[in-house]
Amino acid sequence: MSPKSRSADKPPVLAIAGLGLLGGSIALGARQRGLAGTIVAIGRKPDDLAAARDAGLVDRWTTDLAEGIAGADIVVLCQPVEVIVHELSEVLRLAKPGAIVTDVGSTKTDIVRAAETSEAANFVGSHPMAGSDRVGWRNASADLFSGASAWVTTTDRTDLAVAARVGNLWESLGCRVIHSSPQRHDRMVALLSHAPHLAAVALIDQIYHEGEDAAILRLLCGPGLRDTTRVAKGSPELWQQICRQNSEAVSGVLRDVGDRFHRLATMIEDDDAVSLHDILERARDLRKRLD
Amino acid sequence: MSPKSRSADKPPVLAIAGLGLLGGSIALGARQRGLAGTIVAIGRKPDDLAAARDAGLVDRWTTDLAEGIAGADIVVLCQPVEVIVHELSEVLRLAKPGAIVTDVGSTKTDIVRAAETSEAANFVGSHPMAGSDRVGWRNASADLFSGASAWVTTTDRTDLAVAARVGNLWESLGCRVIHSSPQRHDRMVALLSHAPHLAAVALIDQIYHEGEDAAILRLLCGPGLRDTTRVAKGSPELWQQICRQNSEAVSGVLRDVGDRFHRLATMIEDDDAVSLHDILERARDLRKRLD
Repeated sequence: MSPKSRSADKPPVLAIAGLGLLGGSIALGARQRGLAGTIVAIGRKPDDLAAARDAGLVDRWTTDLAEGIAGADIVVLCQPVEVIVHELSEVLRLAKPGAIVTDVGSTKTDIVRAAETSEAANFVGSHPMAGSDRVGWRNASADLFSGASAWVTTTDRTDLAVAARVGNLWESLGCRVIHSSPQRHDRMVALLSHAPHLAAVALIDQIYHEGEDAAILRLLCGPGLRDTTRVAKGSPELWQQICRQNSEAVSGVLRDVGDRFHRLATMIEDDDAVSLHDILERARDLRKRLD
Repeated sequence: MSPKSRSADKPPVLAIAGLGLLGGSIALGARQRGLAGTIVAIGRKPDDLAAARDAGLVDRWTTDLAEGIAGADIVVLCQPVEVIVHELSEVLRLAKPGAIVTDVGSTKTDIVRAAETSEAANFVGSHPMAGSDRVGWRNASADLFSGASAWVTTTDRTDLAVAARVGNLWESLGCRVIHSSPQRHDRMVALLSHAPHLAAVALIDQIYHEGEDAAILRLLCGPGLRDTTRVAKGSPELWQQICRQNSEAVSGVLRDVGDRFHRLATMIEDDDAVSLHDILERARDLRKRLD
């Protein structure tokens, strides 16, 4: 049977806007798993896009958003969050009837809000929690998403059939899917990814303010401090951007955790051994269950 | 030359009160490095002490404090902090003229205060930062202190010749020695050892209060969170005791770090990118220098 004679089953056209590590890995994974008939890359750099096509990563490329979106059955936006927020209503307007649109942005409230200013109901936000220290499609891997968790966000206005199709896409790429509201996503990501980084920064910043010599500090620094603050070595630019993108959730979590520091201090000052032991024990038990 | 004919050079008698992992390792290290002629263990369990003597760890043992201290040139107290605080003035009264007395307690303000209620000037506090998950002299090692840092605490009332002898003892056992006041020691240990633990506990406690299922949390928990909170798996009993012993310094540090969380939250709410970037960068640079 030729593809023409069964157009209802024609393998879908997948458009990927932003061909970096994530976009490139979606292309490779979709190809390997037969999830797309044609893969189109939408980007800004013709040379880079042409190289990706020559490498077999995508079938076509364009720098024109309208042209890239026009024939696509599935659109995945892999640009920076602020670009997604900016372009989303245009993308939804350009998408053909029945197409689904999703994204990989690591914060969701602003993106989903931008989508819901449009009449279109074919968008559902995603956040596959996969990545690497490396960037760019040349480091992409068909297995980047294998075993990763992917958030799929739903609201009162979500078309659940679209949410199911988006969930299936991530599952087909190897992800475990978690459904949640955009706000809950942002809160949990702030707590589980952003707060640990900022806790490490707060500890190191306190150490900085003690004015002790780094050579002395190095002698005194044990494995507990090293583990707890390792993430503080991350890029200041990246983390400043993350804090900005998820500012409401991050600042809320920081205030909650800061209050917990003060509550622990009060327990210690009051010699409230029972409460302190309860918290230490509860934390030990929950932390062990996270392994 | 027989030992008798050169009594001035007679190898010193070392008394160790509390023969656990640290006391046992001091015995082994002192023996291997020829730091002591005779090693006496002072303890509470005759069977255990006799077994240590039979194993060659010490030459003599006693359950009588006065008998153990009487002939010693060097006395190292390796009991729990509260026992040291309780017995210290008695130990200093019993010590022979010219003997030096030190300890391995992990908090120093209370111990040094207890010593300074006595007239004796032959005490200087220590805190060798060495240990292991294992306890008891059967797990002792002559090299436990090799490469470890050892605090030696001095005050206005310290006899610097005694401080020098105590520092030499730790250096001979392989330590790098750091001199400081007892208060500074307690503050830095609170900051560098105790605060990281409690920061991990505060983060996990916040996660606990979100009420999310542990199975979901496990899916969402990345290497950053795992590293940052690993120490929360430690013994609640041990950490409750540590918080109690160093309560003043620990609660002070917790309040300072808690305030830093709120300050970071304010920067993020105010979109104060410059201040936030400065802190992130400073933390990154200092953390890298701690490796």
